[in-house]
Amino acid sequence: MSDHQEACIFCRIAAGDMETAFVVETDRVVAFDDISPQAPIHVQVIPKRHVDSVHELGSGDTALWAEILDVANRVAVKKGVDESGFRLVSNAGPDSGQEVHHLHVHVLGGKKLGPIA
Amino acid sequence: MSDHQEACIFCRIAAGDMETAFVVETDRVVAFDDISPQAPIHVQVIPKRHVDSVHELGSGDTALWAEILDVANRVAVKKGVDESGFRLVSNAGPDSGQEVHHLHVHVLGGKKLGPIA
Repeated sequence: MSDHQEACIFCRIAAGDMETAFVVETDRVVAFDDISPQAPIHVQVIPKRHVDSVHELGSGDTALWAEILDVANRVAVKKGVDESGFRLVSNAGPDSGQEVHHLHVHVLGGKKLGPIA
Repeated sequence: MSDHQEACIFCRIAAGDMETAFVVETDRVVAFDDISPQAPIHVQVIPKRHVDSVHELGSGDTALWAEILDVANRVAVKKGVDESGFRLVSNAGPDSGQEVHHLHVHVLGGKKLGPIA
């Protein structure tokens, strides 16, 4: 594991170092409950490989991006919010509120959600 | 154009019926400014083909989903928020606040954004 990965909390979670219970795990993606949930259902979907944000995904990452969506949709079903509704959010950069600089897609639901911005 | 497409405002925008100025247009995707912006930059990225929401995208839609992300990232650059930061949001179903039942990814930026839920 590189020094960068050592320092990145989401790389450590993806590697299993934190003994995180995964809601869904695939070859390239893991999903886990947010530790400070902002809704009754709040799951993070992340690539195992370090990517800073969605803005860093390029034409070579098509399969990874599709796998992230597939996992997010499976999370919605598994958490029982596929019918009631859910929101996907990914923040990139300073103004967005991105806190961990490892690409993550929030899956939010379980209540009437508030404004998006 | 089917009756369904006639009734869907985003199908009509994508078809050019509303004379919408597109921020970016590709073979399968268009992006346009939201008419009720919730941030200084608020662009909708949508597939030209009707899809109800992200929850309806499946394994056959990998290229479309990648094109939506590519357009969103190009919108961020074109609107000058790729460095300052931006948020991607897609709502699906009742609790999420989804208003138009044609898949759309919001690209938001231009200010410090608020809570995600």
